[in-house]
Amino acid sequence: MQRRDILRTGLTAGIALLGAACQQKRPSVGGGMISANRRIRWRLATSWPPNFPVFEHGPRRLAELVEKMSGGHFTIEVDSAGKHKAPFGVFDMVRNGTYEMGHTAAYYWKGKELAMSLLTTVPFGMNVWEQYAWFFYGGGMELMQKVFGKHGLLSFPAGNTGVQMGGWFRKEIRSVEDFRGLKIRVPGLGGEVLARLGAEPITLPAGELYTALEKRVIDAVEWVSPAVDLTMGFQEIAEYYYLGWHEPAAELQYLVNKRRFEELPPDFQTMLVVAMKETALDATSEFFARNVEGLESLRMRYPQVKILRFPDGVIAELKRQTQLLLQEYASANPLFREVWEHQQRFLERARRWTELSEFYYLTIR
Amino acid sequence: MQRRDILRTGLTAGIALLGAACQQKRPSVGGGMISANRRIRWRLATSWPPNFPVFEHGPRRLAELVEKMSGGHFTIEVDSAGKHKAPFGVFDMVRNGTYEMGHTAAYYWKGKELAMSLLTTVPFGMNVWEQYAWFFYGGGMELMQKVFGKHGLLSFPAGNTGVQMGGWFRKEIRSVEDFRGLKIRVPGLGGEVLARLGAEPITLPAGELYTALEKRVIDAVEWVSPAVDLTMGFQEIAEYYYLGWHEPAAELQYLVNKRRFEELPPDFQTMLVVAMKETALDATSEFFARNVEGLESLRMRYPQVKILRFPDGVIAELKRQTQLLLQEYASANPLFREVWEHQQRFLERARRWTELSEFYYLTIR
Repeated sequence: MQRRDILRTGLTAGIALLGAACQQKRPSVGGGMISANRRIRWRLATSWPPNFPVFEHGPRRLAELVEKMSGGHFTIEVDSAGKHKAPFGVFDMVRNGTYEMGHTAAYYWKGKELAMSLLTTVPFGMNVWEQYAWFFYGGGMELMQKVFGKHGLLSFPAGNTGVQMGGWFRKEIRSVEDFRGLKIRVPGLGGEVLARLGAEPITLPAGELYTALEKRVIDAVEWVSPAVDLTMGFQEIAEYYYLGWHEPAAELQYLVNKRRFEELPPDFQTMLVVAMKETALDATSEFFARNVEGLESLRMRYPQVKILRFPDGVIAELKRQTQLLLQEYASANPLFREVWEHQQRFLERARRWTELSEFYYLTIR
Repeated sequence: MQRRDILRTGLTAGIALLGAACQQKRPSVGGGMISANRRIRWRLATSWPPNFPVFEHGPRRLAELVEKMSGGHFTIEVDSAGKHKAPFGVFDMVRNGTYEMGHTAAYYWKGKELAMSLLTTVPFGMNVWEQYAWFFYGGGMELMQKVFGKHGLLSFPAGNTGVQMGGWFRKEIRSVEDFRGLKIRVPGLGGEVLARLGAEPITLPAGELYTALEKRVIDAVEWVSPAVDLTMGFQEIAEYYYLGWHEPAAELQYLVNKRRFEELPPDFQTMLVVAMKETALDATSEFFARNVEGLESLRMRYPQVKILRFPDGVIAELKRQTQLLLQEYASANPLFREVWEHQQRFLERARRWTELSEFYYLTIR
């Protein structure tokens, strides 16, 4: 498979990639025979703690589907960060071939390539359907392969958390000033925006968050949403749960070592690519259902928790600082600029359709 | 594969079905060998006119993916209604085995089974993510197999149009009275609700709609959305394009002959099920992207078209009549009642999450 074919992936929503994979000559007995004589064992590293709800289910389903489609000839062993001990080493481990693939989030790798911070979700950016339309039919996949291809990697959408919550706070936020000096766990562009308001974004291992919040080492924790937050126990020690603005459509990501992918038989390549996309729909559906359950549980069992929106003035300032931050990065980094401007152009048109369809509908339902 | 396993599909989002498919014994050389010695040719009938944009792309991609994953051993020939001449005969042709599978919409078959009218979309009902969460993680797939299983069929989601538009009108709708005597092309529950307001819902072949509207044989046409409506030319003869209420999340559907599915080798069964779900995500993304393009084209090239919302009083009456209609059907038909009440219970909780996540986010973006 040629690099050119992988770059075209986005233009035809994966078909070009699959097409290229299958243009190789095969004996007249058919592709099934080729694969039947091979056994391929891959390993996948996740960025998640062991048994992390919903997050871990996606890659495990992927492994199950690929094994069944290949009649047991192509297997993928899934290791959580509990096993490999390097949740933020997934990028390097897949790049150097220690693992053939990973399950992670693109924005963790902004230190490797700034543009990767745009490929999970963007504050005040696209919602889930806008983003899938951008990935598969708006040129997004092509740009994503360009960004990751520089590092010998392929990247594929792996399921979306939907709108993430703004975080658990121990005190109410009444104005922009309340962010000054606030120690909050929050990653990605969202954290950088809050830093511009005077907050101190902090990174801590998942296992230390509850204690840090309880002992007031930190003042607030942005985590995910009701689907998984309740298992962390934050609702027992933080009274305010704010609605989100910074991660409207956090797409998880499969990373694949490009050379190893090219070594796969063509039928196995297709199985892998199809199964990855299937698990994206499945995981997004599961996140939604678990969020519904989590919210219900929160309402019933923890009525003391107040679900609030940030004041209008705070939202306006967050939006203003988001634009300034993105503009600064775009000025400093051409690849970041290319991806961001592409997303902006798509969203400018896409939001018109969202407003006439989904948004309008939700106002009348 | 046992009927019991298929009914469990919904509980674990397809995994149970796949698991059952692969529990059969196979020789130690592996499943790939079994399939390599077989060639399976299936045929798929669509309910769409030939080359119908977006709609036809999904099943054609499905055939392509399955062929590549199986190394050319499992092929699916796609026939549009232009070939088989029976767009509304797909259900019977798949049931009797003339075609192994179909690509259609569940609500076309309400005459076969009333509950099928609930399995495409429901007026004022679930949006796309709520519905996918219901299908895959809320018990919906299990109910869908129960409804179609009575008729020897399996059914799988096949991609969602998103919110459909309310239709093209030649006169403005100012009150409920304006629907009295209005001849409008509109199918499904939406049409029945409009009938309760005094409209006359009409069914006509796609090819006759433009002329009927032009010659005022009909007064209005509900079709799909900007993704495909402009190819029909309605914008040239109707000045008013109304926002939608009746099809908030129209999910297309693969129908599969259950006995033929059970005869497939287990690896091919899994390939088919995985590829169907993959094409659901792909097609929904494509509908969204084409709607964005269609809306842009409408704004630029047909500025005379007025995009309007129905007056509040009309929406309130449509909602009231929808509830009355659904209640009447639920009283008359136990299976309809079972599906509808199940959907209602899910939506009652799901809408709380939608309001705090997607809806809130769209108000601040």
